[in-house]
Amino acid sequence: MAGIPDLARTEGPFSVVFHEAAELVGRRWTGAILFALAHGIHRFSELEDAIPGLSARLLTERLRELEDVDVVKRVRQESGTRWSYRLTTKGDALRPVLIALNHWAVTWSEC
Amino acid sequence: MAGIPDLARTEGPFSVVFHEAAELVGRRWTGAILFALAHGIHRFSELEDAIPGLSARLLTERLRELEDVDVVKRVRQESGTRWSYRLTTKGDALRPVLIALNHWAVTWSEC
Repeated sequence: MAGIPDLARTEGPFSVVFHEAAELVGRRWTGAILFALAHGIHRFSELEDAIPGLSARLLTERLRELEDVDVVKRVRQESGTRWSYRLTTKGDALRPVLIALNHWAVTWSEC
Repeated sequence: MAGIPDLARTEGPFSVVFHEAAELVGRRWTGAILFALAHGIHRFSELEDAIPGLSARLLTERLRELEDVDVVKRVRQESGTRWSYRLTTKGDALRPVLIALNHWAVTWSEC
């Protein structure tokens, strides 16, 4: 276990960019929000319904944080009266992370 | 973007096990600690030195949390007088998550 070849682009055992990414994706509820968006849930009310225990206030806060770092964008729906939330290209690039974490979670949840 | 094939084992846009895994790995500093452990940093003092800004108190707390869920184990070193921290099999299985997140972080850090 002496180092991860695939992490070779990092210079040592601490990486600012990794740390910042982990803190972003790992903020309370953010993982669940990204998971729902990646499953095609886009409207605020639908996100609110999909994620049990998440308050509207925190959902708003987290979506704004994700917008601020260009992971989520708010787009007007076709009807023109409602907004929906979409993963940006940068946000969509998080799918492999969600998939890897979900695989781990499903595999080890009963251990 | 209608769903993630690789997430098909989940029944819908919310997964308790995914959520719990995201909250675990995403706790403040936990990502950085796992990253350092995966890079072969094992002693408490070395972890403390490797991760700038992390206090001894929080490092202790996070290591205990990771021990509680069998992601990290505390083992006596050969000398018998010191402890070191190692990823368990379950913890080592998080490498693909660390690798995927690091790849994303390195790719998108300047955007």
